[in-house]
Parts: sequence; C-alpha cells; structure tokens
Amino acid sequence: MENVPYKIYLTEEELPKSWYNVRAHMKNKPAPLLNPGTGKPMTFDELRPVFCDELIRQELDNDHAEIPIPKPVLDFYRMYRPSPLVRAYFLEKALGTPAHIYYKFEGNNTSGSHKLNSAIAQAYYAKQQGLKGVTTETGAGQWGTALSMACAFFGLECRVFMVKCSYEQKPFRREVMRTYGATVTPSPSDTTQAGRNILKEFPGTTGSLGCAISEAVEAAVTTPGFRYVLGSVLSQVLLHQSVIGLETHTALRKYGIKPDIIIGCAGGGSNLGGLISPFMGEKLRGEADYRIIAVEPASCPSFTRGRYAYDFCDTGRVCPLAKMYTLGCGFIPSANHAGGLRYHGMSSILSQLYADGLMEATSVEQTSVFAAAREFARTEGILPAPESSHAIRVAIDEALKCRESGEKKTIVFGLTGTGYFDMTAYQKFNDGEMSDYIPTDAELEKSLSKLPQIG
Amino acid sequence: MENVPYKIYLTEEELPKSWYNVRAHMKNKPAPLLNPGTGKPMTFDELRPVFCDELIRQELDNDHAEIPIPKPVLDFYRMYRPSPLVRAYFLEKALGTPAHIYYKFEGNNTSGSHKLNSAIAQAYYAKQQGLKGVTTETGAGQWGTALSMACAFFGLECRVFMVKCSYEQKPFRREVMRTYGATVTPSPSDTTQAGRNILKEFPGTTGSLGCAISEAVEAAVTTPGFRYVLGSVLSQVLLHQSVIGLETHTALRKYGIKPDIIIGCAGGGSNLGGLISPFMGEKLRGEADYRIIAVEPASCPSFTRGRYAYDFCDTGRVCPLAKMYTLGCGFIPSANHAGGLRYHGMSSILSQLYADGLMEATSVEQTSVFAAAREFARTEGILPAPESSHAIRVAIDEALKCRESGEKKTIVFGLTGTGYFDMTAYQKFNDGEMSDYIPTDAELEKSLSKLPQIG
Repeated sequence: MENVPYKIYLTEEELPKSWYNVRAHMKNKPAPLLNPGTGKPMTFDELRPVFCDELIRQELDNDHAEIPIPKPVLDFYRMYRPSPLVRAYFLEKALGTPAHIYYKFEGNNTSGSHKLNSAIAQAYYAKQQGLKGVTTETGAGQWGTALSMACAFFGLECRVFMVKCSYEQKPFRREVMRTYGATVTPSPSDTTQAGRNILKEFPGTTGSLGCAISEAVEAAVTTPGFRYVLGSVLSQVLLHQSVIGLETHTALRKYGIKPDIIIGCAGGGSNLGGLISPFMGEKLRGEADYRIIAVEPASCPSFTRGRYAYDFCDTGRVCPLAKMYTLGCGFIPSANHAGGLRYHGMSSILSQLYADGLMEATSVEQTSVFAAAREFARTEGILPAPESSHAIRVAIDEALKCRESGEKKTIVFGLTGTGYFDMTAYQKFNDGEMSDYIPTDAELEKSLSKLPQIG
Repeated sequence: MENVPYKIYLTEEELPKSWYNVRAHMKNKPAPLLNPGTGKPMTFDELRPVFCDELIRQELDNDHAEIPIPKPVLDFYRMYRPSPLVRAYFLEKALGTPAHIYYKFEGNNTSGSHKLNSAIAQAYYAKQQGLKGVTTETGAGQWGTALSMACAFFGLECRVFMVKCSYEQKPFRREVMRTYGATVTPSPSDTTQAGRNILKEFPGTTGSLGCAISEAVEAAVTTPGFRYVLGSVLSQVLLHQSVIGLETHTALRKYGIKPDIIIGCAGGGSNLGGLISPFMGEKLRGEADYRIIAVEPASCPSFTRGRYAYDFCDTGRVCPLAKMYTLGCGFIPSANHAGGLRYHGMSSILSQLYADGLMEATSVEQTSVFAAAREFARTEGILPAPESSHAIRVAIDEALKCRESGEKKTIVFGLTGTGYFDMTAYQKFNDGEMSDYIPTDAELEKSLSKLPQIG
C-alpha cells in the first residue's frame, strides 16, 4: 500500500466555510427560469409564494463565486462532515488495474446520502424566515429522509410526497421519516388537484418525481406559513452541494493528487453538480483540465437522448419553465427501474455546461449497474445505493480500460449514498429477476412532442 | 462550542496495532470453559473440531496483554476505522445538562455495527488455516451481516442461522447477507438435529440466539472444512473488540479528557467488553477509576436477575459450559422484545468483573429505550439500533441527573450501530403499539432450575 491513507479525512479547520457558486465563472450562464404565462424570466416576487426568500436570492445569483455558509449550518455539517475521500485500494486490486480510484462517500449519515447537505441549508433558511413548515417530494426517499432530519433539527413541520413506486418498494423509508416527525403521502395522491389530474390521465401510474413536485408545490402555496423545497435540479441545491467538491478538492490537493476523470451519477444533477463544481471552476478559468462524465440510467436518459429546451419542471405543469436537457415533463420511467434518477429533466447549470462541451454523458443499464454494486460491496465493504452504482459502473469500466492500455489514470467518483433501503431491488438482482428497460424512440418522441413552445 | 471537535478522528498512525487482552490484568481470571461430559476445562484439542486453531489459542490466553493484529486485518480495519468519537453537543443542549457526553459510533460501516471488528479477524484466521467456510448464528442480524462481508472479502463460504423472529422482522437483512454471498436459514430449522429437537420441545418458538448457536455448531462439526464462529460472549471476541476501547482511549487522551462514567449495552457483552477494556485495565492496575455501567433489556436481564453459575452456552446443550451470569440456557425472551440483546448468558470476562464489583449493571424497558432512540435521532442525526439505544437511555438518564445536581460529569457511551433494519420496531413505537415485557420471578426460576449441576 502507498502513502495515501485509505480514507482522507479533513480536520474541521479544513472544512469549507463558503459554498462555491460555479455560475460566477460560467461564460454562458444557465438560462433563467421562465414564467410559463408570460414567457419572461421569473422575478424574485413571482417566486416568493413558492420558495424561501434567501433561497430565491441564491437561485438567481449568477455573480457571487463564494456564498458564506451560515454558522448553524456549519455546526450541523460538523456532525457528519467531512465525508471521507476513500482510496479504493481493494477494488483496484480486484480489477487488476493500474488506475488509482478514489470515491467521495456521502452515505455516512442517517439520511444515507449527500442530500442532507442541502436539506439542512434549506431548513435553516425556512426557519430563519419564521416559516411553520415545508413541503417536498422524494423519489428514492433519500431527499425526504434528509429533509425530515433537517426539519426535526430546526423544529419545522415537514410534509413529504413520495413517488408511489418508492413508497411501495421502501416501506421502511417512510418509517425513518416518521421517526423524524414528517408526514409522508404516496404520490400521485388525491390530496391535491395536481395529483387528482395526474391520476385521471394516467390511472394506475407508479408516479414520478415530476408528479410529486406538482403536488408538493400545490400543498405549499395553499398552506399558510409553508414553502416548497426541492432536493435537486435547482441551482441553489448545486450551490449547497458544492461542499462535496470543495472537500474533495482540498483532500486531493493535500496529497498532491490530480484527477484525470471525475464521474458522477446524474438524476437531477445535485451530487454530480456539487462534486465537480470546484474542478469545473478551474476548467472554466483555464487553470486545469479534467474529463467529467455524467452517468444516467438508460431508462431515463435526459442527457444522452433528451432535448435541450425549455420545459416544465413538473408533470402537472404548475412550475416555472427551465431550460434543460429533458425527456418531456410527461415522461415517466418504467416501474422496473430501481431507485432514484427518475427525473425527466436535468439541472440547468449542468445542461449548459454539457451543451458547451465541458462535460460528457453516458447511460448504463441497471443489471450491469447492480453487478458493479455487488462487486463494489464485496471488495470495498460499502453497500451502495442503486443511484451511486451508476457511477461505480462507469468508474470500473474506465479502470478496466486502463488495464488494457496500461495507463495509470486517476479516477474520482461520487458515491452518493448507501443501499440499505433498496434491498427489494437487490433481492430481484440476487434472484436473477431484474430486467433492463430502454425507452423506444417513439416513446421519447411522444413525450418530447409536448414540450412547451417557448424560448 | 468548545475546543473539542464534534468528531474526534484518529490518523491511521494512531490506530492500535495490537488488541488488548484485559484478562492479563485480571486478578481473578474468568472461569474456564468446561467439558459438560467430564466437568473438566476444555482443552485445545477438544475445541479444535469446533473453532479455528488460532482463535482457540486466543480464547485460552489469560496471560498476554497485547496480541498483534495481523496485517491483512489492519488493512481491512483501515477501510472503515477509526470510527468517530463524537461529542454530543446537540444532545447536551437539548437535555440542558452540564454533563459532557461522548459516544463512540461503530455504525459507520455496511454491517451497521461493531461486529465487523471481530468478524474480519475470525474470517482471516479461518482462511489462514485453509478452511472452506464457517457457520454462525445471528440475532438482530448485525453479526451475520458482518461475517458475510468478512467472508466475501477473504473468499470463504458463510452459512448463517438467523433467529426466526429477526428473520421475519428483517427480510432485508437476509438480502444484504445474500448480496455478500452468504446462505441464511431461519432458526430453529429442520436442517439440524438440534433444531428439530428444539422445534419439538417448543413448537412455534420464534427462536433465540441459544437455539441458533446449537444449530450452527452442529452444522460446522458435520461439514468438512468448516468451523463455527461466534460474534459475542467468547473472550476472543472481546479481545478483537478491544479496538473500540483502544481508539476511544487514545482519542480522549489526545484532548486530555477523563471520563467519569462509561456506559454500554450488554447482550453477550462484545461491545461493552471491547469499549471498556483499556479503561478496565487501568482500573485493574490501580491507575485510574471509572464508573462502568452495563445496560441490558428488562426482558432479558442476565446481569441484574440472572445467576452466576456454569451453564451451557446454547439452548441445545451441545456447547461447552461457561461460568457466567445466566438466565438458564432454556430462557427465550418474549417475541415482543425488539432487536438483539436476546442472549441468556453473558461474557465470562464481564461476568467475573461484575462479580468482583468492578462494574455495575442496570436494566431498562423497551418503550423508554425507543423514546431515547428517537430523541437521539432527532438531535444527533443518527438513527440508532435498538441495542445501542439501551446505552443511550442510561447516558441520557445520567446526564439528567447531572442537570439536577449541577455536576459536570464526562459520560462516554458506546453507540454500537444503526437502526436501518429495525424499522418494523420503530414503526410499532411510532404507532404507539410497542409494549414492555418483564419476565416474572417464576419464569426465571423455571429456566434457572435447569442449570447443570457443575462447578
């Protein structure tokens, strides 16, 4: 073994004190959110009924590179951060690769993922504004769990709309959220107009993040003292998640390591966007170059088969329009697709960076993802979430390419979380009953044909 | 906040290189295992059909204070150790106590508990001996998961007998073990003579650790190339678990902190025994004094209501006799008791220390344990295992006493693991449907009346 420890931990002094806003260094800024009624950029005042004030400021801020992290959020971060940057010595050995593999492991907290980084920030700003509670949606359940924890910590009410197929596959996720005091409703539900509309149009649907967002937004704007919060996609979320990348950057620099390839799974883009932000910043400023790869499921391929266009952020078409790689807001991934990464669109920051050729994207099928997950579990000990395992799959593939070529590349990937609540999916895989699903061109064309004609 | 960080991490250089064998410093050594046939101490040769050779040597070693940790085990430890020693600032604040509370958190690995510390050592020695595989039992499932991980790492077969009530309450535990390649059988089963006997005597039983041990031992001695391994109770296990206490001791010393009270939950005693070992060593050598408290469930109260006597280690009466605090090897805790800590006996090391007045014991009821668990989850973020929460309950109670008295005591407790697979129990608690159970004197007398007449 070499001089780099298995796990690079930072001291509390080395933790970032500010988030990094990559938009400040983008030449082509991400396109603004548009009001679907007027076709004009959403203003602060238009967003106020939905979001907390301070979070709107962060959403609209394309200028400030550094946003100080409030003291109470820093204090909370110290309960579970820094997260370890781990050298995958055992995986390297099992693969027989000359590549060096590192992963930034965000699963070492009860929410089981990186989502807590933004949840605690959003809950803090809601509390600071004197709100009573927040509503949200959750797909795989990680964001809902994280938000429940954050709300319990600050004494806020928390109402979660959980995508129905996850609600059914993950009964224990619900109990974790309840233990933290949240209420959890399977979505689509008949508790909102948006939910009733979706149920009417798609009876028997297992739901999607897009549906659940519509319901959560409606519940927020119709309940006094409540606002809506979102765990991915938005630029404010990527800002908070920059803590992942900043820690990774500091840890690598501490040992003089320069990554060649940085890999992250991409659903709405929160982990990938956070992980790559300081590295992308260097790239944008011409200080360094990296290959950056977004990995998405073949069953929900926004980057690789979507269209870069304005679309609704939600299925119920009540939210603003965002310019992003999208499969169409009516797209609902097949129920056989396990775990998260089920969103029809993609962060507008990442979409712009991808459109500008600053990063790559690839898609992988789920049986090969679970094979990578199992290999990783058996060699590195950690049982990964299905979402995280998309990044593992591609990290392994890149390391195997190095075995062929003899190149000693340095690969860094984001391990977003743990799979303790995904055992139904693992059981299917263990029993050989898992199948793959790739939407046909006709299916995609159908949902893309309904894109709004704006922008 | 003060100068002590939220989490005290050690560098890899500060990690222990040897385990600490507290028996070397005990004036009254733990009583030896006896052969139930002859009533004489078990010899190395008598133990060989059941246990790995090197583990027998460790089991019988009352002399060497330091046992070097083999290099491959040290390497594996570095994947998930050091575990953090956390200052519970937020819990202290919520309780309004002047006490300082620290917890040593062992749940930051996929097995979810401290059990991995011994599992990887035992798997290593089995591999080194050229064995094909191992058998074991598991109660709450943490030990089985840990052993599955360890066996996957070294390429050993792993056969787990899982206490039936846990098997039914925790279907996902089974899948984690299967993902790591283990086979899992609910116990009592009809695959062994011991299991068939128990099923005949107690039809419809939900099982106990004692039953599962009988089955696993039988499976080991009747399968060529297999040995039996155990996750608690044995002195070798406490030896491996001393890594918990050694890290805690180093971390506290690093910041000049001297604990007043050390608290751990006690089922078979593996976590408590490991946590306290270096502190008990100081106490035995007259170098320092500490209050040490074992916490057990009121439904399975070996220390507080058991008898210090020779008893079988298993329900099927096929194992050697150990002198320990026991409820009688036929004692099976009520099915309403959640989680682990279901063993009828107790580590013979801890039993001797308790008999010698070197530590205290107390018992707590499970609804109050889950109330403490929920409070801890909401303030400190971590969702604790029910077992761990026994220690949390008493740590909170001691901190509240400090609030009354104004004393600024330093309390350290062992947080053995996470509760992700215990959501069925949490759900009962969340729904107000959890009940307490305390065995009657008559029930205990009944099982104690069947103690073997030896020693």
